Amino acid sequence: MRYPQIIERSIHFLMKFPGVGRRTAERYVFDLLLRWKSDEIDQFQKILQQLQSEVESCPECGCLKDEKPCLFCSDVSRNKKILCVVGVSKDVFAIENTQEFFGSYHVLGGLLSPLDGRAEETLQIDKLKNRIEKQQVEELILAIDSSLEGDATCLFIKEALQSAKCSIVRLAFGLPIGSMLEHIDGGTLASAFCGRRPF
Amino acid sequence: MRYPQIIERSIHFLMKFPGVGRRTAERYVFDLLLRWKSDEIDQFQKILQQLQSEVESCPECGCLKDEKPCLFCSDVSRNKKILCVVGVSKDVFAIENTQEFFGSYHVLGGLLSPLDGRAEETLQIDKLKNRIEKQQVEELILAIDSSLEGDATCLFIKEALQSAKCSIVRLAFGLPIGSMLEHIDGGTLASAFCGRRPF
Repeated sequence: MRYPQIIERSIHFLMKFPGVGRRTAERYVFDLLLRWKSDEIDQFQKILQQLQSEVESCPECGCLKDEKPCLFCSDVSRNKKILCVVGVSKDVFAIENTQEFFGSYHVLGGLLSPLDGRAEETLQIDKLKNRIEKQQVEELILAIDSSLEGDATCLFIKEALQSAKCSIVRLAFGLPIGSMLEHIDGGTLASAFCGRRPF
Repeated sequence: MRYPQIIERSIHFLMKFPGVGRRTAERYVFDLLLRWKSDEIDQFQKILQQLQSEVESCPECGCLKDEKPCLFCSDVSRNKKILCVVGVSKDVFAIENTQEFFGSYHVLGGLLSPLDGRAEETLQIDKLKNRIEKQQVEELILAIDSSLEGDATCLFIKEALQSAKCSIVRLAFGLPIGSMLEHIDGGTLASAFCGRRPF
């Protein structure tokens, strides 16, 4: 394959995106090269420059914000007595997408993972404790991945908050909507049985 | 969905790439935001700036080149007596990928498509005629899409080159490698019958 060097370099850069292999990166590069207008490229460059510099974590809840006040902390219509704990900030947007939750968020910034050097102190559990006290939280929802790291993190939080007065709940496990029993793994099916509810 | 504005704008920009919907664009933006190092972003910006400005079409064959001489025209090991005609410059790389062709290329810059304003003069057939003469081309390979536009383009080229001494061939039509007869459409199967070869 004898691409001019700049095309080759562009392909390698676009392959950094998650799930993008060489074929897809080639498609993107030819799209940039042959279809994008030059002012679109200029704007794209500017946006790339701004993206990391303009976005920061809210010092209070850890959600992503720009220079304006945090969209979640500043929203008085949100119920501060319900606090939803998530692993990383992008999980917040997945939950917001459901339009089912109107409480507040707490971003841990990662899950427990001793092998990756993420030990208990990285969760800053005191910060969570302070928020629970300050906001008089009544329900703490653990919206944490169903993984080894997620389970360990939930257990650790539960133990660390034993003295807290709020109830601690975790998202339900069960069948994904639209799924067929024959395709469901045993662990999920067992969880769905355990968590069965009146119909 | 309450993304900070710059994230929303980034998502819209990334949705310009072919085949990228909102979900994929969101993934890319969070990847840029949370995983890319800031110097990677800087390099990516520079590459975007260079891409369109450094890549140009070879005035001779129409292939993409950078500031160095065209990789195809300057390569004396390539057989100039075989000329492969393609619709657009990226088709050249698809053919190069096969490592089966060692002749020269001629990029039309598009196929005939009267509805899109691409009439016969846009093919610059005289340029092709000149090359056939200059390179003493013996075999002209039409490596053109199998589409209405592709068929029209091939027919037009064949008629325009009636007086040329080279043989004009078109890529074979038939079963894709690895395909199963039951999944092949009738047109392809009929072409595969017409083009059957001694085994």
